Amino acid sequence: MGRVVQKYGGSSVADADSIKRVAKRIVATKQAGNDVVVVISAMGDTTDELMDLALQVSPLPPPRELDMLLTAGERMSAALLAMAIHDQGHHARSLTGSQAGIITTGTHGNARIIDITPGRITSALELGDIVIVAGFQGVAQDTKDVTTLGRGASDTTAVALAASLGADHCEIYTDVDGVYTADPRIVPSAKRIPHISYEEMLEMAACGAKILHLRCVEYARREDVRVHVRSSFSSLDGTWVQERQEGSAMEQAIISGVAHDRSEAKITIVGVPDRVGEAARIFETVAATDINIDMIVQNVSAVATGRTDISFTLPQTDGPAAMAALDALKAEVGFADVLYDDLIGKVSVVGVGMRSHPGVTARFFSALASAGVNIGMISTSEIRISVVVDQDDVDRAVVAAHTAFGLDSDDEQAVVYAGTGR
Amino acid sequence: MGRVVQKYGGSSVADADSIKRVAKRIVATKQAGNDVVVVISAMGDTTDELMDLALQVSPLPPPRELDMLLTAGERMSAALLAMAIHDQGHHARSLTGSQAGIITTGTHGNARIIDITPGRITSALELGDIVIVAGFQGVAQDTKDVTTLGRGASDTTAVALAASLGADHCEIYTDVDGVYTADPRIVPSAKRIPHISYEEMLEMAACGAKILHLRCVEYARREDVRVHVRSSFSSLDGTWVQERQEGSAMEQAIISGVAHDRSEAKITIVGVPDRVGEAARIFETVAATDINIDMIVQNVSAVATGRTDISFTLPQTDGPAAMAALDALKAEVGFADVLYDDLIGKVSVVGVGMRSHPGVTARFFSALASAGVNIGMISTSEIRISVVVDQDDVDRAVVAAHTAFGLDSDDEQAVVYAGTGR
Repeated sequence: MGRVVQKYGGSSVADADSIKRVAKRIVATKQAGNDVVVVISAMGDTTDELMDLALQVSPLPPPRELDMLLTAGERMSAALLAMAIHDQGHHARSLTGSQAGIITTGTHGNARIIDITPGRITSALELGDIVIVAGFQGVAQDTKDVTTLGRGASDTTAVALAASLGADHCEIYTDVDGVYTADPRIVPSAKRIPHISYEEMLEMAACGAKILHLRCVEYARREDVRVHVRSSFSSLDGTWVQERQEGSAMEQAIISGVAHDRSEAKITIVGVPDRVGEAARIFETVAATDINIDMIVQNVSAVATGRTDISFTLPQTDGPAAMAALDALKAEVGFADVLYDDLIGKVSVVGVGMRSHPGVTARFFSALASAGVNIGMISTSEIRISVVVDQDDVDRAVVAAHTAFGLDSDDEQAVVYAGTGR
Repeated sequence: MGRVVQKYGGSSVADADSIKRVAKRIVATKQAGNDVVVVISAMGDTTDELMDLALQVSPLPPPRELDMLLTAGERMSAALLAMAIHDQGHHARSLTGSQAGIITTGTHGNARIIDITPGRITSALELGDIVIVAGFQGVAQDTKDVTTLGRGASDTTAVALAASLGADHCEIYTDVDGVYTADPRIVPSAKRIPHISYEEMLEMAACGAKILHLRCVEYARREDVRVHVRSSFSSLDGTWVQERQEGSAMEQAIISGVAHDRSEAKITIVGVPDRVGEAARIFETVAATDINIDMIVQNVSAVATGRTDISFTLPQTDGPAAMAALDALKAEVGFADVLYDDLIGKVSVVGVGMRSHPGVTARFFSALASAGVNIGMISTSEIRISVVVDQDDVDRAVVAAHTAFGLDSDDEQAVVYAGTGR
């Protein structure tokens, strides 16, 4: 048979019973004749608990030591899972990220995988062992210190290992049964998407779908690893994320899904002198604080005043830092004011079908208008249209777009968490 | 100044406040001009909790995976302690046993240190960093798997590092302020022993003193590392364990202390045929089950029957396994019965002074007789006399011996845990 990489999240291994259940599924995959490599997250809330402990000891813990601390979480779940598999009569071997050969940059807390040297994994597989790898972690190439890849990065570990080991595909087990056309808590008629292209999944992830992390999807696309997102509570097929197949059913729909995101804020800089280079200075200042800016809108300059307004969106968590940086810049650039608004939401329609179907923007905006939703900012990519709306309007906007593009299914789904928002 | 290795136990780092307190003490040692290497145990009950978790997942967890799991405990406390030191403005770097170069045998759960390659420690010390090493763990020379050295072996890690780094001495911080002449909970007039020789400390440790582990003392004697056992709650001198200095005050006392142990049981094999080799067969059987036998007594054979009784003591925890092995042997050897008694206790007097003072045995036994304590079994070494008594008689025996050898101090100590028994 093949070689399969599976990844289980923290909620799948929250306690001893869950660990035993996951072990059963892994053993079944092994018994079907596969080489099995499993990437595991820390149990339940372990990472948050360790972080709390760190903050009790030091308000600003050094990143190297934080990585040393947090990586203990996956080490524990990996060892426990290996024990549970042993208990079911199969050989399993847990490996830390470092032992598994996950070589990273030295950026503690947000390292990137730069190489995989899976010698210990392949040796164990050749012995017939099931290999359990602690996710989210690696070892820095230069210092040999332990690193973490950023929250939720166990998905990336799994995809990277699947690529390195030439696995047939990578299975990401989670508590939902796939990617949905919209969050079913908002749109009860939302449908599971059986196949989605890397490009669409990237846009969905960037627009608020929490089911797969952006970096994981980027890695999968670059290395051409098929990813199967599925539920650890059922054996049904979930969503396959893979290369778009020309002429396939995937092209039938104009848009694949509607994503939304309530985690951003909008900053408006009022009365910026309309001179060359002022906008650049402002964004250089914000960029220097390591803040990710999402959408930017510069109003047409009012000729009478020679001044303009600039708005941009950013994660709410970065809001205070950005406001502090901009306040410091106020006198120097000579703009009038900085306004902060976190009562916004972003609604996006995503689909490769919009390349070949004209009028998508018109249909989207018309649906929003009929629903009485006012559009604040707009940004587009080749396969995505995003709008910023009032936070209170997000649900209505999602429902209207979902219906307008014919995504509503005939019968209502059971309401499960879609992972396409929060 | 010098280079100091300090070891702090789990109770010294049980929570965030304790960790901060320990960090202060470490920083003070650094500020006094020393290179400081710290060996740390897991926080409070972490190891027990992880063991519970393992047993929930598998009744017989594989030792390799158990080591992977348990070593997470020291990794966490080491990282947290490094954070706390950073927070006090000093550079600290935590290292796992493997990173610290603790090379061991491959016996998971009970590995032995076979080499230390402290390159990363010395590099960090040269940079002026304080180094925090996760105790109790190492890496197997052959498999590169993570190993543990057995419960309480962080003391051994500390002594081994002190030897390898050429440290001036090794400080073992604990929740008592040294080694006492007896357990002060039994003998309120017990005194702290300011200096004790390796040999005496070995005998005390083997006879129930829990304050230092046998293997740690053996290591210290072999490598000639002076060990300072002291309280993490005070700055007073504790007990120095070191080479006996001829002609020093240490030789004045006939015995240095009275140790006791309630953790053993006695097995008596009744009616063993008095033929050559029968006793050997019995003890081979017990030895094959990896049980540590302590004292052995073979009664004089009754000429009339040609049969004899053999008694031996062993840890209570090994009792069931030994009884099962002996029951299986019963028919083959043809002995009459096997009796098990765990209501015993062992009381030992230890001191190098008994080499040069005749009559120690007589004085000990006479004191026990006056106290109405009946002696069961006896064993002796050059500097120790141990007796097995009824468990109810242990306290009286300890008090009587302590007084008989002039160890009672003039004023009663505050009752603190002596670590010389339980």
